This record gives sequence, structure tokens and C-alpha cells, in this order.
Amino acid sequence: MDYKVADLSLAEYGRKEIQLAEHEMPGLMAMRERYGADRPLAGARIAGSLHMTIQTAVLIETLTELGADVRWATCNIFSTQDHAAAAVVVGPPENAGTVDNPRGTPVFAWKGETLGEYWDEAEKVFDFTDADGNKVGPNMLLDDGGDITLLVHKGVEFEKAGAVPGQDSTDNEEYKEVLRVLARSLEADPQRWTNIANGIKGVTEETTTGVLRLYDRFKEGSLLFPAINVNDSVTKSKFDNKYGCRHSLIDGINRGTDVMIGGKVAVVCGYGDVGKGSAESLRGQGARVIVTEIDPICALQAAMDGYEVKRLESVVEYADIFITTTGNFDIIRVEHFEKMKNQAIVGNIGHFDNEIDMAGLAKIPGIVKDEIKPQVHQWIFPDGKKIIVLSEGRLLNLGNATGHPSFVMSNSFTNQVLAQVELFTKTDDYPVGVYVLPKHLDEEVARLHLDALGVELTELTKEQADYLGVDVAGPYKSDHYRY
Amino acid sequence: MDYKVADLSLAEYGRKEIQLAEHEMPGLMAMRERYGADRPLAGARIAGSLHMTIQTAVLIETLTELGADVRWATCNIFSTQDHAAAAVVVGPPENAGTVDNPRGTPVFAWKGETLGEYWDEAEKVFDFTDADGNKVGPNMLLDDGGDITLLVHKGVEFEKAGAVPGQDSTDNEEYKEVLRVLARSLEADPQRWTNIANGIKGVTEETTTGVLRLYDRFKEGSLLFPAINVNDSVTKSKFDNKYGCRHSLIDGINRGTDVMIGGKVAVVCGYGDVGKGSAESLRGQGARVIVTEIDPICALQAAMDGYEVKRLESVVEYADIFITTTGNFDIIRVEHFEKMKNQAIVGNIGHFDNEIDMAGLAKIPGIVKDEIKPQVHQWIFPDGKKIIVLSEGRLLNLGNATGHPSFVMSNSFTNQVLAQVELFTKTDDYPVGVYVLPKHLDEEVARLHLDALGVELTELTKEQADYLGVDVAGPYKSDHYRY
Amino acid sequence: MDYKVADLSLAEYGRKEIQLAEHEMPGLMAMRERYGADRPLAGARIAGSLHMTIQTAVLIETLTELGADVRWATCNIFSTQDHAAAAVVVGPPENAGTVDNPRGTPVFAWKGETLGEYWDEAEKVFDFTDADGNKVGPNMLLDDGGDITLLVHKGVEFEKAGAVPGQDSTDNEEYKEVLRVLARSLEADPQRWTNIANGIKGVTEETTTGVLRLYDRFKEGSLLFPAINVNDSVTKSKFDNKYGCRHSLIDGINRGTDVMIGGKVAVVCGYGDVGKGSAESLRGQGARVIVTEIDPICALQAAMDGYEVKRLESVVEYADIFITTTGNFDIIRVEHFEKMKNQAIVGNIGHFDNEIDMAGLAKIPGIVKDEIKPQVHQWIFPDGKKIIVLSEGRLLNLGNATGHPSFVMSNSFTNQVLAQVELFTKTDDYPVGVYVLPKHLDEEVARLHLDALGVELTELTKEQADYLGVDVAGPYKSDHYRY
Amino acid sequence: MDYKVADLSLAEYGRKEIQLAEHEMPGLMAMRERYGADRPLAGARIAGSLHMTIQTAVLIETLTELGADVRWATCNIFSTQDHAAAAVVVGPPENAGTVDNPRGTPVFAWKGETLGEYWDEAEKVFDFTDADGNKVGPNMLLDDGGDITLLVHKGVEFEKAGAVPGQDSTDNEEYKEVLRVLARSLEADPQRWTNIANGIKGVTEETTTGVLRLYDRFKEGSLLFPAINVNDSVTKSKFDNKYGCRHSLIDGINRGTDVMIGGKVAVVCGYGDVGKGSAESLRGQGARVIVTEIDPICALQAAMDGYEVKRLESVVEYADIFITTTGNFDIIRVEHFEKMKNQAIVGNIGHFDNEIDMAGLAKIPGIVKDEIKPQVHQWIFPDGKKIIVLSEGRLLNLGNATGHPSFVMSNSFTNQVLAQVELFTKTDDYPVGVYVLPKHLDEEVARLHLDALGVELTELTKEQADYLGVDVAGPYKSDHYRY
Repeated sequence: MDYKVADLSLAEYGRKEIQLAEHEMPGLMAMRERYGADRPLAGARIAGSLHMTIQTAVLIETLTELGADVRWATCNIFSTQDHAAAAVVVGPPENAGTVDNPRGTPVFAWKGETLGEYWDEAEKVFDFTDADGNKVGPNMLLDDGGDITLLVHKGVEFEKAGAVPGQDSTDNEEYKEVLRVLARSLEADPQRWTNIANGIKGVTEETTTGVLRLYDRFKEGSLLFPAINVNDSVTKSKFDNKYGCRHSLIDGINRGTDVMIGGKVAVVCGYGDVGKGSAESLRGQGARVIVTEIDPICALQAAMDGYEVKRLESVVEYADIFITTTGNFDIIRVEHFEKMKNQAIVGNIGHFDNEIDMAGLAKIPGIVKDEIKPQVHQWIFPDGKKIIVLSEGRLLNLGNATGHPSFVMSNSFTNQVLAQVELFTKTDDYPVGVYVLPKHLDEEVARLHLDALGVELTELTKEQADYLGVDVAGPYKSDHYRY
Repeated sequence: MDYKVADLSLAEYGRKEIQLAEHEMPGLMAMRERYGADRPLAGARIAGSLHMTIQTAVLIETLTELGADVRWATCNIFSTQDHAAAAVVVGPPENAGTVDNPRGTPVFAWKGETLGEYWDEAEKVFDFTDADGNKVGPNMLLDDGGDITLLVHKGVEFEKAGAVPGQDSTDNEEYKEVLRVLARSLEADPQRWTNIANGIKGVTEETTTGVLRLYDRFKEGSLLFPAINVNDSVTKSKFDNKYGCRHSLIDGINRGTDVMIGGKVAVVCGYGDVGKGSAESLRGQGARVIVTEIDPICALQAAMDGYEVKRLESVVEYADIFITTTGNFDIIRVEHFEKMKNQAIVGNIGHFDNEIDMAGLAKIPGIVKDEIKPQVHQWIFPDGKKIIVLSEGRLLNLGNATGHPSFVMSNSFTNQVLAQVELFTKTDDYPVGVYVLPKHLDEEVARLHLDALGVELTELTKEQADYLGVDVAGPYKSDHYRY
Repeated sequence: MDYKVADLSLAEYGRKEIQLAEHEMPGLMAMRERYGADRPLAGARIAGSLHMTIQTAVLIETLTELGADVRWATCNIFSTQDHAAAAVVVGPPENAGTVDNPRGTPVFAWKGETLGEYWDEAEKVFDFTDADGNKVGPNMLLDDGGDITLLVHKGVEFEKAGAVPGQDSTDNEEYKEVLRVLARSLEADPQRWTNIANGIKGVTEETTTGVLRLYDRFKEGSLLFPAINVNDSVTKSKFDNKYGCRHSLIDGINRGTDVMIGGKVAVVCGYGDVGKGSAESLRGQGARVIVTEIDPICALQAAMDGYEVKRLESVVEYADIFITTTGNFDIIRVEHFEKMKNQAIVGNIGHFDNEIDMAGLAKIPGIVKDEIKPQVHQWIFPDGKKIIVLSEGRLLNLGNATGHPSFVMSNSFTNQVLAQVELFTKTDDYPVGVYVLPKHLDEEVARLHLDALGVELTELTKEQADYLGVDVAGPYKSDHYRY
Repeated sequence: MDYKVADLSLAEYGRKEIQLAEHEMPGLMAMRERYGADRPLAGARIAGSLHMTIQTAVLIETLTELGADVRWATCNIFSTQDHAAAAVVVGPPENAGTVDNPRGTPVFAWKGETLGEYWDEAEKVFDFTDADGNKVGPNMLLDDGGDITLLVHKGVEFEKAGAVPGQDSTDNEEYKEVLRVLARSLEADPQRWTNIANGIKGVTEETTTGVLRLYDRFKEGSLLFPAINVNDSVTKSKFDNKYGCRHSLIDGINRGTDVMIGGKVAVVCGYGDVGKGSAESLRGQGARVIVTEIDPICALQAAMDGYEVKRLESVVEYADIFITTTGNFDIIRVEHFEKMKNQAIVGNIGHFDNEIDMAGLAKIPGIVKDEIKPQVHQWIFPDGKKIIVLSEGRLLNLGNATGHPSFVMSNSFTNQVLAQVELFTKTDDYPVGVYVLPKHLDEEVARLHLDALGVELTELTKEQADYLGVDVAGPYKSDHYRY
């Protein structure tokens, strides 16, 4: 197999961290307890693409404990924690193999892949072998950002067309690699993706961006299989986006730069859930936070929460830290870099690296990119001014720190497990379309995380429930309730 | 006319406060500017029932400036600001009358009505006179909590039945008054409410509770006219519920008790929008806040926001301040009162006074109710223990302070104005049902409040808007986005 | 007697509030319990000058319960709570008199005195009668701001000189009144103040400003008796200045204006203890706070606490709320008023009304001062712009609200009681000079307030105390420790 | 020389970090600019003992730029940043040597020394060579915690006694090493420490603990030379203790454990400046913070700041994170460890590792200590319960993260530089004793850090300064002002 970095000490360290993380992921452990005996995912072949961290390791091993056969790639070239990958490959302790004789789950990911490597590895999650030793595709996808969903859809599209466009047809460096991989595949087997797609019961998608693409495909009629939008579970979008970033934003800045945040002026571009968590995080450290927004409702929320709300142009010259959280592109541009102070810090915790115009930065005449340490670069302007860029514009909480902590990911990933079980076991209930999990499951995810925090939940009396017109056991809110 | 307390100095003071409030209500002033010339509400006869405060005065005068004929009652016996009522009755300055010769809008409300007076006054908002001097009903309702909507629906129901149930048929003191008023009406005119209902184009409703009733009626098929749910506009539910209560909760406690909040233990029952604002408010003053919740998602949010989450039973003996925010009933009960500390403070900022079991409190053997000042009572137990109850369990921010401040009400009320215009001018677009305002109007409300706070809004480029799949001018979010 | 406003219902209301406040003032109640039997102040004749509020009523009655004979004036023309004054005059319940037959403590104060009345009443606290019915002066002073201390010192000075300067000798309106009173006194008895001063064992002073004057007098050799600086007890300066203002600043703004603080830009001039509490208060309500400072250390603290620190000139045009907290003068000047936005709110919570140049404001050509309600004025500029000024530039928390809450004042006033007992009973230990209370008493004050907040204090073991080089029972810190 | 870990790439990385840090240390850079030409420290031979971090590197190179000859050891076996040490050894860029041919400052420190190595290295900072190549002692000490001050004083004491006590005379593992080093020295040169002490003009001490020892020595008459207490400069104690820990506490926890802090219960033992910063830090991340305190004043502050204040015993069973900040010993003991939850996290940010009874922990029968990664251990109880201990009970912000950030250390270290210059150049003004820097220098330190944060300082007018009785240029506060 293809896993490059595994060695025994890495795997051992990874196993220790996984064991600690299990304690912090009560939702996933409850899934194992509740469903482990029934193995509702027996027969499932799950192709996964999601940051290969310790938390994901606990997710993967929960899926396998529920009966699934799993293959895994990362969805980000910098976010892999090699000890997590190694530990998953070796396998869980009750049945642990070794690096040479792995009995765990195949993982195709390491920290610092090239774009070419990334797409080569992504392709490998589709190569299952069935009980009889036949090559077979996955029947379930678990995706983060939609990259493996894209591979299937583009594969089918090009197979229908009978040809893959040349790499010259695009300026996008990453898409060139997609075309390369698909061209190679088409040559080898002109029906490969079509066959794979036919075998897929559905995909569960983790992110806003991936979900947006799914809705778009559904609207234009090109969606090939049903999808569950995990991102919009309340216990996902309002938890890992907000509370996860509250934790991991400053963790990434601290590990990357060791610069004091207190007293500094920090600009947070965007005040969605990620922006809300980011702003709170920086304020909690004593920074003065300025928000930029395009949506008047979010802008008004920011103002009512006590933040200054300005256009980036108005504050770029004196701010110290710039964080993008938008899911959009071209938020911080060359015109901004040029006006920033010496040693301004720039990072992204939104989605793609194009939130910051890294390509434009690299093209500034005379600029020099100098690595301070991995994932931390100073870009030195001809006049000596330095701008510090974290994780090359990719997600700094994953590149400079270890991503969201286990507890909040336990919420998100319990949604993933429930969604996988739902789609795999109730396939007929889900014609092609994009769904969210029913609210009672969303509440269940929350409920599984209360004990760990010492929370006592009050119970409605029957009379109170009737008064509200709800069931004593929930769900308690209408679908449009905003929390 | 029936307005009891008006005198000139009250009216003059009210006019000054209205003028100051106009500055703080940029949304309403923008409505006047935008629509004043077109008078889109010309021909509208609006029966309104909503706390008669200075802010409501600005709303009423905005409606009249847009052409409407308006009659107004309050929706709460304690919340009327008499100077506001007097000023509205006298009329706006450009055309002001006097107390003896009022040229403003008829208002049927004063601070401290009895329940009987309350329902007598509520009935009067239905008595319009048309241009020819004929008695005629309203064609629009604007409601807060659904009391005048109830009057119409119950009236029609009893007229159909041909009889009103006797007052003995209910234990509810308030409902007895409803039956009394409707029995009197049925005797006078057995088709009165049926005729009124036929003339009504729709109702716009302000609160969660009122909206719940509307959905219930719609589900059971008894809703008589279309309704716009103003409560669930983001710029309403996430603004006045949260930021309004953040302001007015401590204002009410301070005016009512002068007790230091800092260092105290405060229990907030419920962590919806009102609970979130209340908890923030108390924490901002240095209290240690404990939350109670029945919904696991909201409970988990409270814990992640750093609050202790317990059952009331677990903390009732040592907490100092108890605030209900639930919209449910029987939250604080006799068993709790009995365990509270001496001089514990109890108040409600949720909805009805039944959040606190006031009736049960009054029935404790040997208890004495002693007024400290209006809306502040100490309930003295036989052993000398005192419990301080604010506003007799009704909304303390309205009873002990002046309710939400103008700026946040400007958001809510701009939604009301837009909803009235929408329902009145596009009647055919709204068959019987319950609607929310379209998102672009919700965003517009927010937009109208940014300048006043010095907010600079960033504009999307065409490319960025395309990337997100939205229009440059919005709306920017999907309908299920939670903010 | 001279108390003007007392009537029975006022006094009854005051007694209720006093009873509630006693519960919130555990330090004073502990003084009564500990010292009540010994009556260490028997023989003390205390002339007091301090805001005549409910809290002060509990202080006065604590002093009398410890044996003292007390006479009281206020130190601020607007801060008197008439019901508190009435209740003190009538007397405590166990021995209550009536308004006609008062058995309580003589109080010379009402809300809204003129400056002339103020100094006439201040003079009356010196007119004690001894057991034999002879007129006699006080032997102790309890002062806030130093006004009665000033009266004695100036009186002695002018008696020595044999003449009081004419009122024309000063531009200061208030000092003219001082001269008037002293001239009258000199005429009546040319040795009155000299005799009084000889009988005074000492003064305990409440405020920074008063303390500063005492140190000045001591340095220049003119101090006539020993003084205890109560202000610089930690449990005073770090508690009522900071936590008291955190409570009462927004209380004053809210009662005065009903304007939403959330989302607004508020400028706090000064970042001492009062400024720190004020800034926290406004931030806790969602305002964006900007600080002005002259001291680089405090300025750096403000920045590290996440506040923007600017000169007033830089932000005066766009801020919404301006609060002075400095103890200095001429902080907000005409040049600032002229640049403020319409409906900007201006108030002072520092010390004297000259923090804001009220005299300058009144002299702006064409300006009109219009009362909205007592202690709230709009100053209307010729172009129609309005500036809202609270309490005419005097302390807004006392003028517009009810001052600091009982709990924090219990700390300050327990220091006062301890200081009175210390000076009165250990007169020989205190030669003329200015003293602070010993740290063990300061710690004792804190200790007396812990139970009420449910605080569990950890006890040092003997070994731990030895390790730190302190006694198990304290004091725990060196004198220069900053807390 | 003795520096063990230097290699070129380490040194190069260190130089980059130093260059970045210089930007964040405006106070030190201002010292270079102001004093660089005069070289006021020419002739100074400074023996330093202080955490060998990047920030200390900038301090060392500031001292050398002011003319000093410097030798350096660390004051903590885990806190050395090897790249910082390597870079200092190699020397600053304008005159850089290489690892083989170092032209920088001798440093005797590496991460992870044994106690024996630590004291061997500490001794080496005393071995200067003068211009003529003669061995000579330092004439200045710069100390953190008092270890090298201890070495001199104990050396002198034992030389006077003529003998060093045997290592058996103590149970303290560390003090055994001190005795070993001094015994070796006495044998080699029985007057060595006496001669060194005679040549020392003074010491500047960084910490509370070190300062306490100095005052003790001074009181008992054994202090050998004058000392400046840098710790009690406001810009030190109220800045690095509070704001430094606010930054570095969560940084250490995050790097050490990756555990989500939000929603957890965290106990902070002690509410001095370090505790205040620590509590704010954890609250800013969404933890619920409980404080333990022995001092009633600090306990009351904690309560007023909204924290629960309990004895450790009352909460040890359910809290998740335990942080000691006291400067005392035996705060967390075996009886506490035994009651903690599984995977509780325990760390110290106070002073010595004896705040946590690490020795007691190790002696629990059957307990196993297992390293997760360097400075992070799980202690596994016989029943499988794990307790996670950071940095073996030593300062976790230094052991698990990189200590306080540059900006806050710039404040502390600018005080150090000013104190060194003061003592070295004005020796005669400082007879043996313990001094703090004069307030105008303290204010100067603050002033040098304002520009970097965009702070605008307001200037007093002459009239305002006179009103306050201060100079326009400061100092602005009395010596006992608490900030």
C-alpha cells in the first residue's frame, strides 16, 4: 500500500492520542455502544475524503466498528497528522497489526502532499476489493468539500463525452491535476466512473462549500445519487464552525507566530459562524477585532456584538492580523498586501486558499518568499517590508495547529455516522436529492455530549409539552428555528 | 374617547421623547421617507394591539404617515407609558391637537389596567368610522401575542355556535373577561365578529407565542385570514429578542431593586434568543449565570458559551436572581419558592406571567404580599423570608423599565411596516396561511440600520457574487441559514 | 428641625428600602453584631457629609448603633434620596418616631438643593447638643470630597486672619457660598471654627479628591487633625470605584435616556478604577468602547484589555456616548461639543461637574437648554443639533440613578466604620497625619462579604503560611501589592 | 565552550525568529537607539540566569549593544529554546560568527537539562575573562527566581563557615545539587564566592519569588549587595504576569493536549495577577472557571468578576482542568489527584513545580507514568484512571509552549535594562537594600510600547496638571496607586 510515512513509533504515538481523543468524543463512542452489536454498516464500502487527523481516526474506527469497509484520503494537502494516519493503518489495539502487516484501514494521506500526489491518492479510495477478491467500487461516499464527489461526477461526465479536456483548457493548477487523473483513468477503463457511480447509494457531505455544489448539481439535474447535508445540522454548523474555530484559530496563530494577540488589531473578514467564533476567539485574547461583511444582517449582528465593522480598505494600513472566514474568493488581494504594515500576519480559516490571493502575492515584482518554519512564510517586499502568511493561505487551524479539537468534532462526526447509517440502511427513503438529518437526530447528537460537560437537562412535564405543542422527548423546535 | 390619563404636560413630555426616539429608529424614518409620498396604506384601517410605548408611538405615526387609519390598544396591562399614549392621542407636531381636541390616533391604554379594563379597551380598536361616518371594522390587524386575533376568532366561533360559554366554564381569570366581552357583544350584535372577520385582509404578528397560535389555527383549518409572522424575520427574532433583552433585563432589575448584580448567582431559565440575551446581560454585569434548558441543542450551546447548565432544583437554594425566558408555563413553582434564599429576586422576561406560578405563590398559607413600590412586591413567608417578585410575574422589562430600546425596536417595527404594506397592497398574493417576509426585505431592514452605527458594508464584486451563486444585491443566504 | 421633605409615606417607603439594603450590606450588619454591645462609639459626635442615600442610611444607623451621636448633610446637591433621608430622620423601627416627632438622626439634605442651601445645610452638621443641653461641636468628621473638612479649615484660617474675604474675591460660584456662610459665622462667633477644630479627634475621608486635599494640607503643614484615607483601602478603591461604576453607569444612562447602548460607540475618558469599571459596563452591553488616557501605564492597560485608545479629538465626531471618569477638569470642552453628532449623550461619573465644561456649553451663542425630565437636558444648538447632558455634568450615577448598589457600598462603609472606631478609640496612636487602614482590617472587610456570595475561602496550612512568610490569618500581601 | 546543541540550521532559524521578535519588542529596540551610542554598560560583566528564549535573546543582545559583557544560563530546565540559544552563541548578524567560531554571547542552556547539569551550567556564568585575559567574576547579576543570587550567598556563607554541608543534610533533590557544586568549588578555591560577591555592584531580579527572598535576606541582614526589584514595576507585574499568562496558558494547554477548553470546567488556584490572566484566558475560550483563593480580598475580586470561588476539595471531582498560579506549595495534593476525573489535566503556571505535589503523585502505589510526548505525561492509576500532567509540574507555558510572547516581555525586559543601567551607573545612590524603579521610568516603559499598538496618548494641559498637582510629563500617580 501507498502510505508513506508510517513507522512504529509514529503509530504508537498516534494510538495514544486516539485513546485520549476517544474520551473527548462521547458521541462517537455512544454510536459504537448503541450500534456496535447490530453492525448496521455491514456491507458498506465507504470511500472517505476528510482531513486525516486524530479525530478522523476515531470516526474511521467508529465506522469500521459499525461494520463498514473503509478507505480514506485527506481533503487538504497540509492537514494530515502523520501519527494519526499511521495509527489507523496499523489498526485499533484489540486487533492491531504492525506497519509491515497493517490490519487497520487503508489511508492515503501525509502532511505536505503536492497537488499531483493529492489527486493520485484521492483516486485510490475508490479501489475496494470485495470478499471474493474482486475489484469493486465504494457504495458510500463521505466527503469534505466535495473533491471525491467531483471526481465521480466529472468522471461520469467525461466518460459520457468520451474524452477528458486537455490540461491546457484551464488555468487552475488544481483542476489540471483532476484532468490528468481522469484522462489516465479514461484510458485505462472508459466506463470506470460510470460503474462506480451506479454502485453508490449516497454521499454525506461535511462542509458549506461541498453542500453548495451538491445543491447546484441537484438544481441543474446532474446529481448522480442522494446526498445528506451534514453541514447544516445545528450540531455541526453552529458547533464546529463556531466553537471549533474559537479554539483552533488562536491555536494556529500562536503555534505559527508566537506573536502576542492581546492589544493587537485583528480583522476578521466575514461574520458567519466561522467568523463569529474567530472574532470571539481573538477578543478573548484581548485583541481589538474589526469585522468586514457583505451581508447587512451579519454586519448588524457584528455591530450589536460590539465589533467595529469596516471595509478592509479602511483599516488595512493599521491592522496587525488578518483572518479570512468567508467561503468566498479574492477577499485579501494584492492591493491590500501592498498597504499592510510590516510583519502583518495573514491567514485563512474559511475554506479554500483562494480567499487570499496567493497567486497575486507571488507575482509582485521583486517579492521573496522565505520559509521561517513549515507552514509559516515571510513574504519580503523589495523595500524590506515583510508579510507573514500562514499555511500558504490554506486553512491555518489545520496547517499550523491540529484542527478542531476532538469534542467539537465528535458532534460533527456523530452527525456523519448517523447520516451514513441513514442513507445506507434506508436507501429507498432517499431518492436523488439533498437532505438534512431530521431534527430529532440533531437533538440526539447534542444529547450525547451533555454528560461529558456535567450538563443537567431539564425535562418537560407532559403538561408543558402539550402547552408548547411538542412531544416530551422532542423535537422541541420548528425546522426554521435559528438557535 | 376613552383615554384616561392624558394631560398636556404628559403629552408634551411624550412628544419630546418621541422626537428623540425617531433619531434612534432609522428604519421607521426610512419607511416614511421612502413611502410617505405614495401613501401605500391609504385606505387601511389598522387595529393594533401592542405595548403602548414611545417606540410604538413612532410605529403608529409611521403607519399614519403612510396613509393608514389606526386605533390602538396595549397587549399588556403594565407596559403602557402614559406619556407616549398621551402624545399619540394629541398627535404629531405638524398637526398637533390638544388633549381636549385630539388630532392624533385613538389609544386605549394606560399603565396598570385591570384585566377587565384591558379586554374592554381591546374591543375598542375594532370600532372604526369610515369617511361617511359609518361604523366599520378594521381591514388589517397588527398584533402582539394574538389577543385581538383571538377576539375575532373566538367571536366568530361563538357567533357560529350562537352562544358564548359562561364565565364559570373556565378557571382562567383572563379568559373569563374574554367571555364577558364576547357575551356582551353577541347580545348587541350576533354577527359583529363575523362581519369584522370578513373585512380583514390579514394580520401581522409580533411574537413567538402569537405565531405559534397562528400556525396551530392554520393547521386545524380555523385561521380566518392570512398572517405574516414578523417574529421570525431574522432582524426581529435575532435582534429584539436577544439584544433587546440584553438591554432591558438588567434595566428592569436595576430600576426595580437597585440590587448589585455583580458577584450574584443568576439563574436564566431557557436559552433561546431571549435567554441568550439575558445571560449575556447578567454576565456583562459580573453575575455568575446558571442556565436551565429542556432542549439538548440549546443546553449544549449554553455550556459551550461557558455557562453552568443545571436543573432548577439543583441550584434553587443558593441562587440570588431567577429569570424566566421560556415561553412555556410553570417554570418557577411553589416548590422552588419554598427553597429560595431570603430576598431572592424573581422575574419573567419570557412571555406570559404563568412562567412563574404566581397563583400558587399567592396560595401559600400565611404568605403576605407587600408592595415596595409599583411593580415590585415582597412576598413575606410566615417565617419572615421574603421573595421579591417583579411586575407580578409579567414582563419585567416592560413593567419595571421601559421595554426594549428604540434602536432594536426600529428593526422589529420596520418589519411590521413592511409586512402591513405587503399584506395590504398584495392581498391576492397571500391566500389564508402564515408567511414570513422574504429574505430580501429582511436584509433591507438590516441595511437601514447600519449607517446609524457607522457600519461600512463591503460590496461583492460581480465575480464574487457569481462564485457564491448569489446576486450582488442579495439575498445572500439560503432560507434555512441560521445566522 | 430643618428637614424639608419628610412625610410619612416617604419615610415608610424608605424604611422598607433600608430593610432590604441591610441584607445586601453584610459588612455593616457584622459591625453591628460585633461591636453593638460594646458601643465603641459612645461619646462620639460625628458630623457626616456624604450622599444621603439608602446605603448611607444603613451606615448612619450602624454608627448610632455603635453608640455615636450623628448629624448628616449630603455632599452633592442632586444625590439625596428623599425617602432615605425621611426614614433616617424618623428613626429605625425598634424605636421609630414619626415625622412630627422624629427619633432618628438629623439629616440636612434633599434632592435638588441650590448651592446656597447646600452650604447652609452643611454648616448645620456642626451644631451638636451635649447631654446637658449645651451647644457643642462634633468630635469626629466623616467626609466625602472634603467639603465639611474645608469648612473647618477655612473657618479656622479666616478666624486667625480676623476676616473672611469678600465674595467678589472669587469667580467660583460655589466658593462664594462658602465665603458667605463663613462670613456670617465669623460675625456671630469669631472663635467658632477654632473651638470646633480643637475638639475634633479626626476625619475619615471617602474619596480620591478629598484625600488629595488632605495630603496637600499635611504637606503644607495646615492639617488640623489626623485623617484616615478610607479611599485607598483596597476594598474601597478597587471595589466601589470599579464594580460600583460597572453597575451604576449603565443604570444612570438607561434611566436617563432609554437609549440602546449595544452597537453604539462610547468614549470613556480615563482608565483608572472608575474608567475600568465604566468601560467594562458599556462593553458588557455591547457597546464599542474607546478610551482616552494621559497616563501611559493606564493607556497600555486599556489597549491590552482590547480597547481602542485615542485622543478625544480623533473620535469626537462619530462617537455616541461620552463619559468622563478622570477626577480632572476640562475634559470635555466646547470645541468637543461643537463637533459631536446630533443626540450625542454626555455624562460624568468621575468627580466634579467641571470634568465637563458646563459653563462653556451654556455660553455658546444661541444655545438653548431644554429639560426633558429632571436631570436630563437637551442642549439645542442654533442649527438644531441636540446634545443630551445627564445630571448637568454632575455624577450621573447618583443624579440619574440611585448611585452605587448596597453591596459594594457595604465594603466602602465598613471601612468607614472601622476607621471611625480606630480614630476615636485609639486617638493617641494617630498624631496629625494622613493614614490608611492597616491591611488586616482591609482583609477583614473583604472577609465579611464572602458568605453572601457563596464564596468558600481556602485556608493556608501552617507550612504554607511559613513558606510564604505570612501568618495563617493574614495579612497575606505586602503593602505595595496592587491586586 | 559548553553549549551542546548548536548547529547552523538551528542558529539560522533562531536568527530569523530573533529578527521577528525585535519588531515586537519596541521597548528594547528603543533602549538600543537611545543608549546604543553612549554604551552605558561598557565595563559591565553581567551574569544572567533567565529562561533562554527568543525574547531573552533580544534582551541579551540589547545588553551587549549597550556595552556589556554577558554570560547566560537558564533558570528552568525545560524552558530553553535551543534555536534561541544557538543564535545568541553565533552572534548578531552584523558581526555573526559561526557555530565553530562563535562571536556572540556564551550561553549555558539547553532544553531538558538534568538538575545536575542545570547547576553545573549555572556556575559557569561567573567565569568571566577580563580584557587582559585574567579570570574575573561578574560585576552585575540579572536573575529570575534567585538561583544565581543563591549560589553567591550560599557560597559566601559556606566559605565563612569553612565547609559545605553534606548532601545528606537535605531531602530536597535540587538543593543536593547546589551543595555538590559549592563543595567542589570550596575545594578548588576557598575564597571564590567571597571574591565574586565583593565585585558585584548589584542584582536585578525578575520574579515575585526571587524578590521575596531578597527582602528576607535584607531583613535578616544577610544581603550582600543592592538589588532592584524589577518584578514590582507596574509594567512588569501587571503586564507579563497577567497579559502574558492570558496568552501563554491556553497556548501551553493547547499544544500539550489539543483538548477543547470551551465548555470545560477549569479550576484556577490563586487569583493574583497570574491567576487573573489565567482565568480570563480560559473564560475567553468558553471554559467555566472556578477560582480558589486564600486571600479574602482576591477572593472577593474573583467573585465580583463573575467567577465561582470554591475550595479545591469542593470541586475536584468534576473539574476538567486544574491550573496552579499561587507561588505557594502543595496546592494540588495526592488527596486531590485521587478524586479527579479520568483524563483530568493538571498544570502549573505559578512558580515552582512544588505547587503540584509531583513527588507525592509518583509515590501512589501502582501508579505508572507514561510519556505521551515530551512534557506531556499520563499518570495511570491502578484502576486505569489517567491524569494528564503538563511539564512535570513545572511552568507549562514555558515547557509546553514558548512562554510569554515578545511584546509583553519587551515591557519586563525594558525594566531589566533600565535597572541594570541604573544600578551599574549610579552605584553610589544604592546602598545595600531592595529597590523598585522610580515611577517615571515605569511610565517610560509603558510609553515606549504605545505606538506599536496605535495608541494615542492624551496630553495634560499645564492647568490640568496643576489641578492634579503633577507635572505635565508625569509621574501621574502616587506610589501606592494600584492600577
